[in-house]
Amino acid sequence: MSDIIYGINPVKETLKTRASQIKKIILAKEKDVRKLKTLIDLAQREKVTVEYKQRRFLDQTSGDKRHQGVLAIVSHRSEVGLNEIIKSWQESGEKLLTLILDGIQDPQNMGALVRTACACDVHGVITLKDRAVPITGAVFKASAGAAEHTNIARVNNLAVAIEYLKERGAWVIGTDANSKMSIYDIDGNLDLALVIGSEGKGIRPLVKKKCDFLVHIPLRGEISSLNASVAGAISLYEIVRQRYYQGESKGKRI
Amino acid sequence: MSDIIYGINPVKETLKTRASQIKKIILAKEKDVRKLKTLIDLAQREKVTVEYKQRRFLDQTSGDKRHQGVLAIVSHRSEVGLNEIIKSWQESGEKLLTLILDGIQDPQNMGALVRTACACDVHGVITLKDRAVPITGAVFKASAGAAEHTNIARVNNLAVAIEYLKERGAWVIGTDANSKMSIYDIDGNLDLALVIGSEGKGIRPLVKKKCDFLVHIPLRGEISSLNASVAGAISLYEIVRQRYYQGESKGKRI
Repeated sequence: MSDIIYGINPVKETLKTRASQIKKIILAKEKDVRKLKTLIDLAQREKVTVEYKQRRFLDQTSGDKRHQGVLAIVSHRSEVGLNEIIKSWQESGEKLLTLILDGIQDPQNMGALVRTACACDVHGVITLKDRAVPITGAVFKASAGAAEHTNIARVNNLAVAIEYLKERGAWVIGTDANSKMSIYDIDGNLDLALVIGSEGKGIRPLVKKKCDFLVHIPLRGEISSLNASVAGAISLYEIVRQRYYQGESKGKRI
Repeated sequence: MSDIIYGINPVKETLKTRASQIKKIILAKEKDVRKLKTLIDLAQREKVTVEYKQRRFLDQTSGDKRHQGVLAIVSHRSEVGLNEIIKSWQESGEKLLTLILDGIQDPQNMGALVRTACACDVHGVITLKDRAVPITGAVFKASAGAAEHTNIARVNNLAVAIEYLKERGAWVIGTDANSKMSIYDIDGNLDLALVIGSEGKGIRPLVKKKCDFLVHIPLRGEISSLNASVAGAISLYEIVRQRYYQGESKGKRI
């Protein structure tokens, strides 16, 4: 099975991280190759086939996405298992940080969440096999290549995955607008898995029940919820702040 | 001049906040009206004309957007001036909080930024008249209606707008990946205007020069930047946290 990766930077990232899995790179004949020099140099160095085709072909192959004249056909990204997320945690010597996504539907949100998770150096992202947007080219592009650098496990059942993490010492935090606790009440220095629900619907009840804590993000204005990728980012960064930037966060004068 | 607002919730929000500016509401004939009962009730109460048309008409009028069978034709949202943002600040009795957007191009990012700004109860959002996505139906929908509740000023020149705010006591923070200071070094209790740059390009040099402080958001993983709406959210919420949730953020055990 193959994935289509499109756009200059996503293809560059793929060349850097798993060139051996790229079957070929396709460039639009009409494209000014000077703009692609570093990409073509990289492909040559990695001995990846580069083909030139009509732009129309790229449009069709990518499903009319903004491919910037560049596609890569790559072997399907091998997903990781939950055990590999646990292994990555144990090897890191840090507190666990995992992002669990309960049914994110929008590729742009999914991409932004993976990008932020990567920026926070999570041990893994866990998402659903069904009921969620798959990790396609659109997600990959929205993640700005972060999907390459992040352990992503796709599971059939989140409740089972959460149990698996809990048995290994994880505390599970879910976001819920109606909870009493706020994200600022958590102890970021526990081994944590953070659950973010889908756009509009939030976390499903059965998954919510599995959470150790439910927290809300304070909303001060006349709005009842935040974008899912924004909620994930604020929560992940609050954990990161407490772990690594606590000393600096006293509002000291600059 | 008129705006098209589409989608059930955005139209409901508009009915609640400025029904008098709605020229009419158009519903798709094919739509099951039971799903729109509260919306239609609201329209009746506010004496807004409701018309029924073929779905195709709604597709065309909205530019093939996901209108959910509901459109509202409304008078153009009257933008506010900078003076109204200052007035809103003075009347609030709180520290200034303003979001300045330097050339955001993507409607989904613009919508998410306005939504987060609204959630943080900012005194206003300042954006460019040119070089930025206008506040259209797509932005409105992505903002989940927050564009209705938020002062938005569109200016020709951000450097001039920043000077205006500085003269009135604002400190201006810009985000810059290369800065030494991090967002966790700021004093959130100053009167603040936060500048977020455009996707990919960041803040333009002339605007950057006007900032009092430049800060970065720490990136721990293998990624060089965050999504613009995510960067804005993390920064705004760090200010809000310092102002209102400082006491609760000591990583206390829950």
